[in-house]
Order: sequence, then structure tokens, then C-alpha cells
Amino acid sequence: MPPLTPPKSGDALFASVDRVNAELFTLTYGAIVRQLLTDLEEVEEVNKQLDQMGYNIGTRLVDEFLAKSNVSRCVDFKETADVIAKLGFKMFLGVTATVTKWDAEGTSCSFVLEDNPLVDFVELPDTCQGLQYCNVLSGVIRGALEMVSMKTEVTWVRDMLRGDDAYEMRVKLIKQVPEEYPYKDDD
Amino acid sequence: MPPLTPPKSGDALFASVDRVNAELFTLTYGAIVRQLLTDLEEVEEVNKQLDQMGYNIGTRLVDEFLAKSNVSRCVDFKETADVIAKLGFKMFLGVTATVTKWDAEGTSCSFVLEDNPLVDFVELPDTCQGLQYCNVLSGVIRGALEMVSMKTEVTWVRDMLRGDDAYEMRVKLIKQVPEEYPYKDDD
Repeated sequence: MPPLTPPKSGDALFASVDRVNAELFTLTYGAIVRQLLTDLEEVEEVNKQLDQMGYNIGTRLVDEFLAKSNVSRCVDFKETADVIAKLGFKMFLGVTATVTKWDAEGTSCSFVLEDNPLVDFVELPDTCQGLQYCNVLSGVIRGALEMVSMKTEVTWVRDMLRGDDAYEMRVKLIKQVPEEYPYKDDD
Repeated sequence: MPPLTPPKSGDALFASVDRVNAELFTLTYGAIVRQLLTDLEEVEEVNKQLDQMGYNIGTRLVDEFLAKSNVSRCVDFKETADVIAKLGFKMFLGVTATVTKWDAEGTSCSFVLEDNPLVDFVELPDTCQGLQYCNVLSGVIRGALEMVSMKTEVTWVRDMLRGDDAYEMRVKLIKQVPEEYPYKDDD
């Protein structure tokens, strides 16, 4: 059995990955949103597409996260949420989130972002008021969680681009698919 | 007159900017390309759109570059090309390029990339053989140079996704728009 390696800190994790300039990323993401707004007629369709795009990205990012973070299996959804907030956001965006507003059952919580690299220099024109600009992020969380057997609904409840005082994403655990033991690849 | 600050090294420059995870950027860019391939029928149209997207990004990135790099006015196109290769690529993508294959007039050269974060994990399906996957990068160079009064043509002449042994971008100076002196902000 290999020796147990403690999970890395968020800062160490972020320092260990290849990175690119955040402004380049922000402008590139802005270009996608603009493209989708041009191609699709309904803002609602753009929202769906961004969410789906994020989902696809999330299903791939989770591998890099598990490979690099040394995080072992989380005992429950609460621990999973903490890991995402402290390590996941840090590893990919260089920021951290606060986990808050747990419901009594421990199956719904909010991620509040103080800093959101996705929206630097972004202003929504009046014609895009229904746009969920950051839907790619909620999609990423949903996609990544599904890869570790947690089916979730993720929605934005506060959005500074729409005049709110913070970015708040609500994550609700719908179903936890029981994993089958023993894993073949652990043999 | 403010004291002259020497230009930063590429590494110092890259360390001074906000960054995000390179894999997130790569996957996000891949999502744009996939989206454009779905929406537009012709690969040639996708190539144009990626180039235009890059151009728009380049016209904005040049400001961050000039603000942070302390690079002063380049004396000619040759110096400009060196600055882009050593500092520009480093600041935004974390890699450097080699400038090579100058023509006799000093108006055409190639940037050769050893490492290209845009294409990690990318494979082109057979149906996309005409795709210029990295056109966003050539567009960025064209857009950024236009903002400093150099009109250029930028084309890919080698592309590892298409079986070549490197990424090589050919930059040809078409016209250098004379700038008007004296600048008010140099007084």
C-alpha cells in the first residue's frame, strides 16, 4: 500500500498546476458568450448551452483535481462541498469560495464567491438581462460532482452582474449513487 | 520626468499577473471551437471566426501588456517581434516562442512555439482536417500589432495537429502606420 499523502493546501495546489493569464481566459470566455448570443436567438438557450459546456468541462476537470490534490474519498456531501470551495475553486480559478446556508438535512448549501475572474470587465447590455453569464461555473460543479456519483442541481441565486451584492451559487444534492465495491482498478 | 523602469523579464511578468488553471482554459477554448463547428457549416467559416475572435481579444490584451511590461517603444518590427516572442507569449500563455526565418527586408518572420497550451488533449477528427485550430492565437497577434500601428498578415505554416513537427506562425508586416509626434503623454 502506498504511503498516505496529505491533501495539498489550496495555494500549494494552485502553484502546482500549469496556468495562463486570467485576462486571456476572461476575454476568451466573453467571446464564447458573445458568439452564443449571436448564434442562438433566445437568452434562455444561451444559458442552457453555457451550463452544458460547463458540465462537459467539469466531467474532465475532476480527473485533474483528483490526480493532483491528494484528496481522498469525502465522507459526505458536507465534506465534498468544503473541498470544492477551498481546493477546487483555488486550483482552477485561483480564488476560494465560502460555503454557507446549509439546510437542516445537510443536502443544500451555497457557494459565495468574493472574487470571480469570469466577470472582470464585463457589463451586460440591457438586451441581455436574463443572461446567466456564469452558468459555465455552475455547470462545471454539476459535471464534476456527477463524476463522483453525486447528482446535483446547481443554480445562481445572486449575481453581481444583475445587481446583487455577491455571486452565490446554490447546490442541491438530488441523489447520491451508491458506488460499487470493490473497484476493479483497485485490485 | 519619471525614472525609467527597465522592462520586466518574461518570468517576472508572468508571475505578476492573475492566472487561472491552464487546463480550464484549454477546455474552455475547445468548447468554443466545438460550438462553432456545430453552428457554422463550413470549416473555413470557423477558421475566420476564430481569427476574428482572436483579433478582438488581441486589441484588448495589448493594453495589459503595455501597462505591465514596462516595454518602451520598439525601434522596428524586428524588436517588436522579439518582445512578443519573449514577453508577450510568456505573459499570457506562460510559454515562449522562437523568432526565426527573417526575410531579407526584415518584414516577415516566423514564431515557433515549442509548447502550446491551446492544444493539450486535442485531437482533430477526420471531418475537421481543414480546421485551423489555433487561429485565435494568430488573430491575437494581428489584433495586438494593429493597436501599435502595425498592420500584419498572420498565418499558420506548421501545425502539429495537422501532422507537422512544430507550431509555426508566419507574421508579415504589411504597413506601418506612421505615428504622430510629439505624443502628449511623453512631454
